[in-house]
Amino acid sequence: MKKALLVIFTAMLSLNAFAQQALWGGGNVQTPLINEDGTVTFRFVAPKASKVQVTGDFLPTEKKEVRLGDRKMVIDAPGVRDLKEQPGGMWEYTTDFPVPGEFYNYTFIVDGLTVIDPNNVWVNRDVATLTSVLLVPKIGETSYLYAVHPVPHGTVSKVWYHSDEAGLDRRMTVYTPAGYEDSKTRYPVVYILHGMGGDEDAWVTQGRAAQILDNLIATGKAKPMIAVFTNGNIAVEAAPLENSFDYFHPSMNLPQTMEGSFETSFPEIVKFIDTHYRTIAKKQSRAICGLSMGGFHALYLSINYPDWFDYSGMFSAAVGVTDPSVSPMYQDVDAKLAKYFSKKPKLLWIGIGKTDFLYGSNAEFRAKLDAAGYPYTYVESEGGHIWRNWRQYLAEFLPLLFQ
Amino acid sequence: MKKALLVIFTAMLSLNAFAQQALWGGGNVQTPLINEDGTVTFRFVAPKASKVQVTGDFLPTEKKEVRLGDRKMVIDAPGVRDLKEQPGGMWEYTTDFPVPGEFYNYTFIVDGLTVIDPNNVWVNRDVATLTSVLLVPKIGETSYLYAVHPVPHGTVSKVWYHSDEAGLDRRMTVYTPAGYEDSKTRYPVVYILHGMGGDEDAWVTQGRAAQILDNLIATGKAKPMIAVFTNGNIAVEAAPLENSFDYFHPSMNLPQTMEGSFETSFPEIVKFIDTHYRTIAKKQSRAICGLSMGGFHALYLSINYPDWFDYSGMFSAAVGVTDPSVSPMYQDVDAKLAKYFSKKPKLLWIGIGKTDFLYGSNAEFRAKLDAAGYPYTYVESEGGHIWRNWRQYLAEFLPLLFQ
Repeated sequence: MKKALLVIFTAMLSLNAFAQQALWGGGNVQTPLINEDGTVTFRFVAPKASKVQVTGDFLPTEKKEVRLGDRKMVIDAPGVRDLKEQPGGMWEYTTDFPVPGEFYNYTFIVDGLTVIDPNNVWVNRDVATLTSVLLVPKIGETSYLYAVHPVPHGTVSKVWYHSDEAGLDRRMTVYTPAGYEDSKTRYPVVYILHGMGGDEDAWVTQGRAAQILDNLIATGKAKPMIAVFTNGNIAVEAAPLENSFDYFHPSMNLPQTMEGSFETSFPEIVKFIDTHYRTIAKKQSRAICGLSMGGFHALYLSINYPDWFDYSGMFSAAVGVTDPSVSPMYQDVDAKLAKYFSKKPKLLWIGIGKTDFLYGSNAEFRAKLDAAGYPYTYVESEGGHIWRNWRQYLAEFLPLLFQ
Repeated sequence: MKKALLVIFTAMLSLNAFAQQALWGGGNVQTPLINEDGTVTFRFVAPKASKVQVTGDFLPTEKKEVRLGDRKMVIDAPGVRDLKEQPGGMWEYTTDFPVPGEFYNYTFIVDGLTVIDPNNVWVNRDVATLTSVLLVPKIGETSYLYAVHPVPHGTVSKVWYHSDEAGLDRRMTVYTPAGYEDSKTRYPVVYILHGMGGDEDAWVTQGRAAQILDNLIATGKAKPMIAVFTNGNIAVEAAPLENSFDYFHPSMNLPQTMEGSFETSFPEIVKFIDTHYRTIAKKQSRAICGLSMGGFHALYLSINYPDWFDYSGMFSAAVGVTDPSVSPMYQDVDAKLAKYFSKKPKLLWIGIGKTDFLYGSNAEFRAKLDAAGYPYTYVESEGGHIWRNWRQYLAEFLPLLFQ
């Protein structure tokens, strides 16, 4: 009787995703499967389909012409490969190359319909796009940092603070390093900012920042530090699913992201962190960095508050995009740069991909620094305006901090 | 020039989910849309499809015969409705009834292929099944508690502790109520346990526990409390995507879930919480509850540690499922129950659905309590072994604690 009930118990749980608790509903198909030779096999069950394809950034890119209004541009589009139907309606594709170590996003295309992989529970939301995730961690390479390893782990918290500037309670993500709770030590802080349309979740999901921090700190490559992931859109409380305005659809407007209010309100965030965490509340123990719009924010926060950050990182920064007239925060840049550099910050770090559409505006900004003789560290990588570069930049930037 | 670059900036971000940062990639189609009359419209773009359907627990269930080994059973399966093709390849279905307040899961079926909604970023993983989410919060009803409202929010943290019993660092989710960080107050603690195959994420994703706590506490219906969501499978470190063993596929084995080791190791968890959080470490300020396997765990933890919990909740508990011989934790139940009740716990709360396949074994357990004259609170609800009941039970249970 007991045994029979246990069989029914486990069976009932697996019958139905809605009416019952689902138990490994999709878990019968192993996909994506990293093979011993380093190739990866993708599988999809679709007995009635006539064509199943896979696309993602694990495939070599292909040049593709796109129209932006009246302008034509050539972009690097991800490749597409056909899966081959096996007996029983299972479709399969194995790469003809060992897939390099990286954190990838992919989707299937079934008779023209883009779908995520129903047999892979790892789905990532980047802004409002869902994709399936393939993580290939390679020992000795940066990709190894993106995986969870059996090392001491920091705590990742979703924390709310009150913003007088916004008139809202707002959410941020805070990483405290392993051992924080068991010590009375004070720690340096790095503020890590997302791109346009992103939110306080972006760096810890698509950016793998908690894993990068855990792994760098565990191996002694980075100092133990607190990391703060803010939400740069001052008009909202939190990420799409975590605010009280609209559960499903991120606002199509960008009301308050690059018009100065995030920079104006930033002191509230620093004050909240310094009063609620055991920080070292000094310039030499405070860093800031960001990707794209966040790199732009990091720059303007650094030069508008020249006594705050000894370490600043601009990852594919959106410099030259915003009209300075929208905010005093973006004005008098030459004078602000002069003051910022007169206080001898320890590091201004600039990274950008060779094919990034912001390459030109970043080159202009560097020319301005060069003309004035201001020191900075510059890293140029392959590829464009992509997460692959931003994870890599973060992994390079963090070890330079607080040394 | 500035303006042109801004246009390119926003346009480039939206081109491509892989090669660029995605900006509202799927956000053009509003689905699901809650209409003013309370009906809900589902939309799906599939110009080449010949049939598009939607299924989910917002639809009335239909009786369906299924086979479990050599046994036939009739289950309540979710309904299925056809979407109608509109010009331009957009398919659409609007319910012919106002959808009652609830947290629902749904998927589309496109020419027989089950896919989640690509235009809804709210995807939920329940064990290893992905579904899209539809939240219909109705003012004055329990469903209102499942939504994020502009009330003070607690902090939700993913925390690691070391388990000597497991020989692993393991992860739990901890909710601290709004105001915790700004006070020196000590708080009572409720331990909230998941079902078989679930993990430390389940109650805060599918269970909406953080929102339920926020909303009950903000309106004074529940006392401010700390909530701890453990991982009941002692053989793993953490949820599938957060452990170092296997990134994609939850183990198909259930190695250490109902054989006593979770109960044996539980003192480590209580000790960790009581030493790392400002708890009131007393029986009258400690509660435990759980769903299905977690209800079973809650019972055996309560009676094996009779000095620990003054409040216990069994939600569709898996009593009568496990053979007592697998662990001393499950033996001498009559003597343990006698000791437990001799210490006059304030609440033993039992809830189950009328069509739950565990209804019979719960009735047997209640008969045992009745025969001995032990007091308990009993709630019987409609439906079976479903999350809808467990959220409801949690919302009913929490206001009874620490009064």
